[in-house]
Amino acid sequence: MTGSAVNNAPLHATRTDAPDTDSAPRIGSVPGAITPVGTTVSVRVPGSTGNVGPGFDSLGLALGHYDTVTLTRIERGLEFDLSGEGAAGVPRGPEHLVIRAMQAAFDAAGAGELPPLRLRAHNAIPHGRGMGSSASAVVAGVLAANALLPASHRLSPDAVLQVCSHMEGHPDNVAPTLLGGLTISYEDEGRFHSVPVRVHPDVVPVVAVPDFEVATSVARGLLPEMIAHRTAAVNAGRAALLVAALGERPELLVPATFDLLHQPYRAQAMAPSCELMTRLRDLGHAALISGAGPTVLTLANGAEHAGRVAAAIEEIAADAASSAHEYQGRTVTWRVHVLRVPEEGAKVSVSTQ
Amino acid sequence: MTGSAVNNAPLHATRTDAPDTDSAPRIGSVPGAITPVGTTVSVRVPGSTGNVGPGFDSLGLALGHYDTVTLTRIERGLEFDLSGEGAAGVPRGPEHLVIRAMQAAFDAAGAGELPPLRLRAHNAIPHGRGMGSSASAVVAGVLAANALLPASHRLSPDAVLQVCSHMEGHPDNVAPTLLGGLTISYEDEGRFHSVPVRVHPDVVPVVAVPDFEVATSVARGLLPEMIAHRTAAVNAGRAALLVAALGERPELLVPATFDLLHQPYRAQAMAPSCELMTRLRDLGHAALISGAGPTVLTLANGAEHAGRVAAAIEEIAADAASSAHEYQGRTVTWRVHVLRVPEEGAKVSVSTQ
Repeated sequence: MTGSAVNNAPLHATRTDAPDTDSAPRIGSVPGAITPVGTTVSVRVPGSTGNVGPGFDSLGLALGHYDTVTLTRIERGLEFDLSGEGAAGVPRGPEHLVIRAMQAAFDAAGAGELPPLRLRAHNAIPHGRGMGSSASAVVAGVLAANALLPASHRLSPDAVLQVCSHMEGHPDNVAPTLLGGLTISYEDEGRFHSVPVRVHPDVVPVVAVPDFEVATSVARGLLPEMIAHRTAAVNAGRAALLVAALGERPELLVPATFDLLHQPYRAQAMAPSCELMTRLRDLGHAALISGAGPTVLTLANGAEHAGRVAAAIEEIAADAASSAHEYQGRTVTWRVHVLRVPEEGAKVSVSTQ
Repeated sequence: MTGSAVNNAPLHATRTDAPDTDSAPRIGSVPGAITPVGTTVSVRVPGSTGNVGPGFDSLGLALGHYDTVTLTRIERGLEFDLSGEGAAGVPRGPEHLVIRAMQAAFDAAGAGELPPLRLRAHNAIPHGRGMGSSASAVVAGVLAANALLPASHRLSPDAVLQVCSHMEGHPDNVAPTLLGGLTISYEDEGRFHSVPVRVHPDVVPVVAVPDFEVATSVARGLLPEMIAHRTAAVNAGRAALLVAALGERPELLVPATFDLLHQPYRAQAMAPSCELMTRLRDLGHAALISGAGPTVLTLANGAEHAGRVAAAIEEIAADAASSAHEYQGRTVTWRVHVLRVPEEGAKVSVSTQ
């Protein structure tokens, strides 16, 4: 991150939260502040699942399924080299989510416009399936931007969480993507907080990703305004149990993933997913809807169990009598991945030409 | 627990859940089955707090404040020697809660009527204050009865939990009293389950016990039928956070004890307690209503902090301008105890003459 100042760099000096003194100098006036052309920042960013079981809007879990985003500082313009999941459908301009997230980080740092960049992205996280692809893009963008900023203006880990959470609207997915493992997120006096919690190494996530999408906004619109107090109390107890089960007692994952806040209301929007989840739970597996769906996530207890879960998914999906087999008049294809819960979140590496 | 059969023992052979075969013999026919006169069983049983913060009806915490109950097998009758908290007000007959709990254990074991007994009890846990005194009496009775039963008919730990929970109506207090530490309780297919979770050694409970009582039934009647979905989601997140805070991150106990399910609704029934709790929380202490109140429990982070909490309680209680100072026209007296969270639950010891 050292190098001489580049004259045409569009970084500005305005920093809204700091006075314009010697201790908070204008970026343009700092020798070595502007990232030189040729600097490359790579971010390897995991996927995530939010709304884990009874932890609606609070519990998130990192999933070891990675997007890789590389930003190179170039002479002029904005270039894209996109491949993998969803590559055909995303915009190639300033409205690309990674670029928007980079700009949000620059804005938070008072650093003005982004410099000319080439974005190369290879995505493994499916889009629109409840596996946190947008949170991963946001985290990649904010972390990459932060690495391009001069040290004097770099965002703190907490500021990174705030910027990412504001972009997403909540920290449920960005927190595990940033921190790894399980995160418990909450809002307090207008700020987002996320607490990372250890996950037992025997917990193995198995995802079944269908070939249809459900918009998060549609899934959210199905939730009721009010619920019974008794239901809320039962759900809170299971949320507490889930922290214990994921951390220490994976044999309790079936009762611990019992949810009364979101899955029962969303069943109609993703009948094949709910059918698959229900049949897996009936077989004694801790299956749940990942995020706002429609991916079905099963938390297995050990590798051998994960193998049995994968086999059960294949069997249910192949059963023509099952409603997991068909959606809107055609056969559903399920991709099954046995993943792991990464202990660490997104990783950034910087190289200079 | 060895000894010859006593002819006048009223133990019966009927065991409702087991066939009358050689493997489940009638108690009266088992040599050594009947506890001999002079046998003494002592149970040292901690208090507890239920409804811990956002964990309404699920989270319980053992409190290192002990009742000691001693049962001696005598020749005839039922004798009482009661002292300490509430001794004047409790019945001296088969309706005494410890005796009723003993009979419930004998019933569950198919062991018929209790033998003649002397009950000596010294209580430190205040009655009617939300510190689990009834659960402690129930646990003491069931464990004492179990120790008096022949080994062939003794209740398993799970059966003990079921009997105690059915007597209380829920496992919230009996679970930490039996197991120590923090417990997460839930009901599944008609059975009670309680999962013990480690508590960080720095967590120090400080109780402020007022000199007035609030019946649990009154406190329960103040809860609404329905609550907002958003409220339930926030509360579930905090319940999850509380498990992490109590286990690993006591510095997060203030946000982790934020509750939206019971305390806001019960404020009117215990204004002095709510005032004390609110003022302690405003000072940055993790104060909450213990169980159904009116005791105020503060979870301090270390001994030094506990000392500051105790001092703050004294100061608030002495403030004539505070509504924690007065209740129904008279000055409230608060007894303050700095306790600990016992790692172990109730302990039983048996001696024979």
